[in-house]
Amino acid sequence: MSQSLSESLKSLASPIINQIYNDDFIQSMLDGSTPKGSIEHYLRADHQYLNEFAKIYALLVPKAHTNEEMNFLLSQIDFVINGEVDAHYFLSEYVGKSYEDIIKGHHHWYPSADHYVKHMYYQVNMREDIAYTVAAMCPCPYVYQQLALKMKEHHSLESNHPMLKWIDFYVEGMDELLEYLFNWIDQSAEMMSQDEVEDVKMNFLQSCEHERKFFNMSYQQEDWMWNNDEQ
Amino acid sequence: MSQSLSESLKSLASPIINQIYNDDFIQSMLDGSTPKGSIEHYLRADHQYLNEFAKIYALLVPKAHTNEEMNFLLSQIDFVINGEVDAHYFLSEYVGKSYEDIIKGHHHWYPSADHYVKHMYYQVNMREDIAYTVAAMCPCPYVYQQLALKMKEHHSLESNHPMLKWIDFYVEGMDELLEYLFNWIDQSAEMMSQDEVEDVKMNFLQSCEHERKFFNMSYQQEDWMWNNDEQ
Amino acid sequence: MSQSLSESLKSLASPIINQIYNDDFIQSMLDGSTPKGSIEHYLRADHQYLNEFAKIYALLVPKAHTNEEMNFLLSQIDFVINGEVDAHYFLSEYVGKSYEDIIKGHHHWYPSADHYVKHMYYQVNMREDIAYTVAAMCPCPYVYQQLALKMKEHHSLESNHPMLKWIDFYVEGMDELLEYLFNWIDQSAEMMSQDEVEDVKMNFLQSCEHERKFFNMSYQQEDWMWNNDEQ
Amino acid sequence: MSQSLSESLKSLASPIINQIYNDDFIQSMLDGSTPKGSIEHYLRADHQYLNEFAKIYALLVPKAHTNEEMNFLLSQIDFVINGEVDAHYFLSEYVGKSYEDIIKGHHHWYPSADHYVKHMYYQVNMREDIAYTVAAMCPCPYVYQQLALKMKEHHSLESNHPMLKWIDFYVEGMDELLEYLFNWIDQSAEMMSQDEVEDVKMNFLQSCEHERKFFNMSYQQEDWMWNNDEQ
Repeated sequence: MSQSLSESLKSLASPIINQIYNDDFIQSMLDGSTPKGSIEHYLRADHQYLNEFAKIYALLVPKAHTNEEMNFLLSQIDFVINGEVDAHYFLSEYVGKSYEDIIKGHHHWYPSADHYVKHMYYQVNMREDIAYTVAAMCPCPYVYQQLALKMKEHHSLESNHPMLKWIDFYVEGMDELLEYLFNWIDQSAEMMSQDEVEDVKMNFLQSCEHERKFFNMSYQQEDWMWNNDEQ
Repeated sequence: MSQSLSESLKSLASPIINQIYNDDFIQSMLDGSTPKGSIEHYLRADHQYLNEFAKIYALLVPKAHTNEEMNFLLSQIDFVINGEVDAHYFLSEYVGKSYEDIIKGHHHWYPSADHYVKHMYYQVNMREDIAYTVAAMCPCPYVYQQLALKMKEHHSLESNHPMLKWIDFYVEGMDELLEYLFNWIDQSAEMMSQDEVEDVKMNFLQSCEHERKFFNMSYQQEDWMWNNDEQ
Repeated sequence: MSQSLSESLKSLASPIINQIYNDDFIQSMLDGSTPKGSIEHYLRADHQYLNEFAKIYALLVPKAHTNEEMNFLLSQIDFVINGEVDAHYFLSEYVGKSYEDIIKGHHHWYPSADHYVKHMYYQVNMREDIAYTVAAMCPCPYVYQQLALKMKEHHSLESNHPMLKWIDFYVEGMDELLEYLFNWIDQSAEMMSQDEVEDVKMNFLQSCEHERKFFNMSYQQEDWMWNNDEQ
Repeated sequence: MSQSLSESLKSLASPIINQIYNDDFIQSMLDGSTPKGSIEHYLRADHQYLNEFAKIYALLVPKAHTNEEMNFLLSQIDFVINGEVDAHYFLSEYVGKSYEDIIKGHHHWYPSADHYVKHMYYQVNMREDIAYTVAAMCPCPYVYQQLALKMKEHHSLESNHPMLKWIDFYVEGMDELLEYLFNWIDQSAEMMSQDEVEDVKMNFLQSCEHERKFFNMSYQQEDWMWNNDEQ
């Protein structure tokens, strides 16, 4: 019996996730050395990112085939707007500023975040089948879950480790969501030509790379040249 | 002090609403003579219509400017999918069949409903400002509320009148929603050129006429020629 | 060997085309009795319609798979904007006014034209496969060609018949275009599920009915209620 | 009298253009040392890019306000598909392979090109006013013209310089196009709020940075990690 598309995606993503794990952002989180400016940069970027993530879920609603799919999308929009922000509060505690102060007055998307967001919008705007967009969105929860699991597995984190609550947030809550998303991809792929499946795969793997670029962007506090006067 | 756009829209809609009130659908509802086939036709059409209405709300989400606007849209999607169906249950009682049996297996949009739905999609797909779409959607709750109020006002309906629960549904629940929608139109109109305001007005008045055509369509059980073999 | 989809569409369209042929617009064209106001209404409506038709072709360009398909679409946009207007000039001669004077200052779409145009926009905006939109557009040249052929076949029109040039325009120039469009539909249909083919068929037949409504709209000089003060 | 928006955009772009001029791609073009692999990478990337550029022009057609604007867009689509390829032929001569062989079988967008293309699609899909997209497209001809002018000005290139025909292509043909595009931006900006003008400015400056990343991408023959098995 052959491998499902989602299993194949997970295998292909594995080396990219290893690289993200070994990059500075996650490693510095583990040893507690992440520069506060990098965390602030991350929070500003991720606040914007999740806002767009919710909007892209909304644009999927007309592509849903059943009421159940519609209700799933609505519950995810609610989670992204009102729930995932908890993970952000844990990081703002580390910085020692209020989350609201950190994100205040920041409006544009930093370069790598900009690329990631426009990658998802391109799918939802130009492709009818829901799987192209779901494949581009799915690495967000998947990569975070995998990183958090690795962090727990490879390190015995003290109960007062500053990142523990953030890590636990992603260790725990993602299973049901990921099962739903990967199942959606697998079901759509059954009707697809080989070329279409390749596009779905590309969308997924590009988003895995976008996750890597996003973390590195934050660690290095990357911005556009045109915005050099902001800070 | 000049009239707001929403007040002007209400005045312009008034003669159309009077016509709908005097047309066969509402008059027959009042005297209890609506053919059951017309109610069934209406339920099939309105089930589809509300499903698309919810999808169009979802397409508005990326156009929202604040989290509060986004949450309003999400709550309306929930109402349309899960709440407004109550009004449909009251009508299926009148028919004496289960709602699920009535709508089962019906997939296409009847001609006048098709026009109405595609009118709303055109706005949300082609126009960036939320007001063009809101103006096309707003007549749905507004016309129903106005018709229900007129029915209560002009007739002393017995407590066992078969349409009483349906009428009360629209007499009671629409105020807050309508205030929100009309306010949205008025706020957007402040930034608009005169030509743009005329387009908003046209969208609203066309949807009022679509409401009229929708009721007449159901009363006459209108369908496409190509579908003459369905029944 | 089974019938191709396009052959099946032509058979299904045949009774609708017969009805259009027997309706007032075409019959009055044949006996030279069409009210000039109806022709003017038609010219205003069709001027707007062709303008949107060209825009919808443009929206198909990103869905094209080859340079050759892109160039076909570009040549059709050019024909619709710059070529088909010749047919309009023949009709304005009948009215005895300049075409520019007839269409001047008219901006909105009359009700049945509005439905037709929004039907095509819905397809191009919501469906990725080019066939859904092509099926909605194809009845425009097909119905005109079939009507023109019938007019020539059933009547020996004198060389000074006022509609002769209009009829000849559609008798002659449509073959290559129609072959291209029907071939596009047939090729796409090969990859489609039965449900998807049914949607393509519905789009085509609805547009045939829209053609009928468009002619009747013009004959009766139909307009929106909200626009009752224009004329 | 205050500066027009387009004059301000040109000033703001100037330091970015200087950086591109001093980066490896252009400097190596001047001294004839560009690796052939970099030119091949550029040709594959730019072939794809121009194809999408043409499609984005097509998506602007429904946003045009006049027939003259529509005809401008159509002529540009034709230029991009059928005319600008000449510049590519000059570079494939340098490589010593046929252009068709170089681009054959390459389908995906390299990372920085992918970002640039999705930046333009985001504008055309999400923003109604034509200026947002035009501002994102305009740096393509503008930056090339400015680079070519600088190359001619600072160097006395021999008549047999391998890049001379490429340089002359962009020195000569861009004036009329650029005047049209900048004028479009200026006219739209007159109706815009300050926030909207800032978005237009951002779109333009981001595309200038995308031009820089595109050249560097080609020089370094950058690709996605997921595609490491292609070459």
